Amino acid sequence: LGLFHPTLTRANKSGLQNTSHVPESGIAKLNGNENPYGPSPNALKAMAVASNRGGYYVNNSAQTLRKMIAERHRLTADHVLLSSGSTVVLACLAMMAAREGNILVPDLFWDTTAKLAIRNSKYRLERIAMAGKLEIDLKRMMEAINKDISLVQLTNPNNPTGLPINSEELKQFCTIASEHCPVLIDEAYNELAENPEQSSMIPLVREGRNVAVTRTFSKIHGLAGMRIGYMIAQPGFLKKISEFGVAGDWSTNQAGIAAAIASYDDEDFLRHSKEKIVEGKEMVAEAAKKNGLAILPSQTNFIFINLGSRNADEYKTVMRDQNILISGKYRNYSNWSRVSMGKIEDLKRYIGAMPLAL
Amino acid sequence: LGLFHPTLTRANKSGLQNTSHVPESGIAKLNGNENPYGPSPNALKAMAVASNRGGYYVNNSAQTLRKMIAERHRLTADHVLLSSGSTVVLACLAMMAAREGNILVPDLFWDTTAKLAIRNSKYRLERIAMAGKLEIDLKRMMEAINKDISLVQLTNPNNPTGLPINSEELKQFCTIASEHCPVLIDEAYNELAENPEQSSMIPLVREGRNVAVTRTFSKIHGLAGMRIGYMIAQPGFLKKISEFGVAGDWSTNQAGIAAAIASYDDEDFLRHSKEKIVEGKEMVAEAAKKNGLAILPSQTNFIFINLGSRNADEYKTVMRDQNILISGKYRNYSNWSRVSMGKIEDLKRYIGAMPLAL
Repeated sequence: LGLFHPTLTRANKSGLQNTSHVPESGIAKLNGNENPYGPSPNALKAMAVASNRGGYYVNNSAQTLRKMIAERHRLTADHVLLSSGSTVVLACLAMMAAREGNILVPDLFWDTTAKLAIRNSKYRLERIAMAGKLEIDLKRMMEAINKDISLVQLTNPNNPTGLPINSEELKQFCTIASEHCPVLIDEAYNELAENPEQSSMIPLVREGRNVAVTRTFSKIHGLAGMRIGYMIAQPGFLKKISEFGVAGDWSTNQAGIAAAIASYDDEDFLRHSKEKIVEGKEMVAEAAKKNGLAILPSQTNFIFINLGSRNADEYKTVMRDQNILISGKYRNYSNWSRVSMGKIEDLKRYIGAMPLAL
Repeated sequence: LGLFHPTLTRANKSGLQNTSHVPESGIAKLNGNENPYGPSPNALKAMAVASNRGGYYVNNSAQTLRKMIAERHRLTADHVLLSSGSTVVLACLAMMAAREGNILVPDLFWDTTAKLAIRNSKYRLERIAMAGKLEIDLKRMMEAINKDISLVQLTNPNNPTGLPINSEELKQFCTIASEHCPVLIDEAYNELAENPEQSSMIPLVREGRNVAVTRTFSKIHGLAGMRIGYMIAQPGFLKKISEFGVAGDWSTNQAGIAAAIASYDDEDFLRHSKEKIVEGKEMVAEAAKKNGLAILPSQTNFIFINLGSRNADEYKTVMRDQNILISGKYRNYSNWSRVSMGKIEDLKRYIGAMPLAL
């Protein structure tokens, strides 16, 4: 403590140089499920204007965004709670649940927030094993619901598997499960699914059920670095989430909100992004096949690859040595590896490095 | 639930129009302690560049900012935890404390996060009455420390009073109090004080003490809408704060981080802002005198005015009717009113409306 650190160099005054490292030049960034085609041109224009108002806390523009989201789903603006990325609303709900009981989850899902919340709790994550082809086993999850469960959480389409859950089965599951406790569906990748509207559980919120759905502008909208996410749920439920003091309009930033508004209805940009992501997935699928590897059919912007006898962490390390960033192993699935659909040229580098890494 | 709301109008596609409302044209916004002279020209340039990387989560640039902050205070980057405004790190610490005991605070301070945390807790805020001239009564606060107190929290300079705490007395207080429990000093307005360096408690962090200091880019730096704040404390302490899953580099946005880096050392901009704020304070002080009102000597960007026999909420309402936004009453100080140093022309409107509102 209190030591002087002469190795820390002062950043240059304009700040421009120091923010040009994301992703660093020469790095193929395929580990964050970001959309490299964002922000859209409209979003960039909107951010340039909104930055001028960066001296003032966000207010009306955040309300405008909530109204846009609400209108699309035929809800009210009070059914929408914004936060600095959906992680924040997910973390709040997990904290709320972790005060009251166990959180019921599949073995594989985006577990960051639930894991953190349970760490400071006397309760635990109740993980249900995946079904045969790594699908979420709704039947066994339903059987596991009892009075000790304070929340059920799923990701749909799932991360890291990329698999969608059958909509009708999920709807039925949510309808029944939400009579026992809140059901949280993280729909971060919804817009990348084959039938986004059909596969969403937001209609259950409209029916008045105890279901919470999270969405984000970090994925298809290409705004991961602008930190806008939201939860759709009953207004009273969202009020409780707000009471943690970390979510709400005030927690979002002027540039991010403006970008989100500009992107929300931008069908051209969304179609273009989805096409490029599909193009990338086809390339990776073909490369996997050539290398004798099986993959899961993905409805997201990443692919979960079965490396056969190869360990995913070792595979990741070899890729890292080639300046290609991918995920390491998940849970005990030590021979499964997740790769994000980054720029086509970065995916080409990944594909080129596969034989070496295997 | 489930009703269609035909009154919600769809925002225009570019998003530009809908983000131009902050503050709404014609509104004198004097209620948020924002700096209307921000963002600085350097910050605007940096945001324009950084927005292009909005598709990627913040990474290296956030580390650069932490290093800059750490270097100035001769600490390590691990002594700095960023979040989406200092509110988020303040809320996390309050939640942590509210699990273990009462939070000891002065009657008047920025109490939003502590109040929220305690609401979901079996403990309470232990509020200590202000001294004669609305100063924080450190002597009585020290006497109130016992084993039931899990955190001591102060704002310095204080909000809404604008008063600084005597540095030597505060240093002594923190040194002793931090042997009992963590001591949190919210220094949101530090840079606006007469002697910012001397009045900061960050040196106590360097001494290894159990002291946490929060700072923000929302005030003097004119970046309230870009949501960058931070806590300076022992690395192990910050690690616990991180475990709530809502603070950390990842929670900040590309444009905000770039703007913060560009503003941090921008002495010209900071001096200019401080001069305009002092100019505003002199105008308001003179107007108060003319209207026969006493004020507290402020070392912040707002002034706490004694309205005599006038009720602060009624005064606020009359101002609101003139499109002038100020704060309402605080606690039981029903004849005290806080006004922020907005643009000079907005302060002129406020001053012009004073006789009517009184």
